[in-house]
Amino acid sequence: MNKVDNIKTLIDMYVILVYDMGEKRVGKMLKHCRKYLNWIQNSVFEGEITEVKLKELVYEARKIMNEKEDSLIIFKSRNERWLDKEIIGQERMSTDNFL
Amino acid sequence: MNKVDNIKTLIDMYVILVYDMGEKRVGKMLKHCRKYLNWIQNSVFEGEITEVKLKELVYEARKIMNEKEDSLIIFKSRNERWLDKEIIGQERMSTDNFL
Repeated sequence: MNKVDNIKTLIDMYVILVYDMGEKRVGKMLKHCRKYLNWIQNSVFEGEITEVKLKELVYEARKIMNEKEDSLIIFKSRNERWLDKEIIGQERMSTDNFL
Repeated sequence: MNKVDNIKTLIDMYVILVYDMGEKRVGKMLKHCRKYLNWIQNSVFEGEITEVKLKELVYEARKIMNEKEDSLIIFKSRNERWLDKEIIGQERMSTDNFL
């Protein structure tokens, strides 16, 4: 890993993460993703994360998933300001702690 | 509406749309969103859309939703290239037509 790569791993990215999991695995995945990102909807998370932490998240997520049935999609951006967010209906509070 | 606004409505945006709906309404919402965007996961869509078409999508979606229970989140970007997408596990084919 060269110097530039070293620096890259320290810069936060903004990510949106969505999953579609079998019922048996969904609780575990939710708990896992909440360690890294903000939960904004049923199976949707967003937040800032470093490249290294994201790799860790994905590595552990693969262990939870059944890759033949489940799916995990991560949208990554270097900068949140390129995205506007519009919420219609119920907004999940970020202070929501019922799990 | 001035000239600039007029032009803006013709430019495509890239959007990610996610919903969380009561079971009774989910089929109708899926069908509705598929008219405008590509279905990429259970309740996740993406694609290019004009501002006008997106307004239409939201207007009709509100009629389907129970805004006290359901939620619809739309992430908008002027340019898809600001986002990288990583898919782990099952990928839904864009040619998928089973509904």
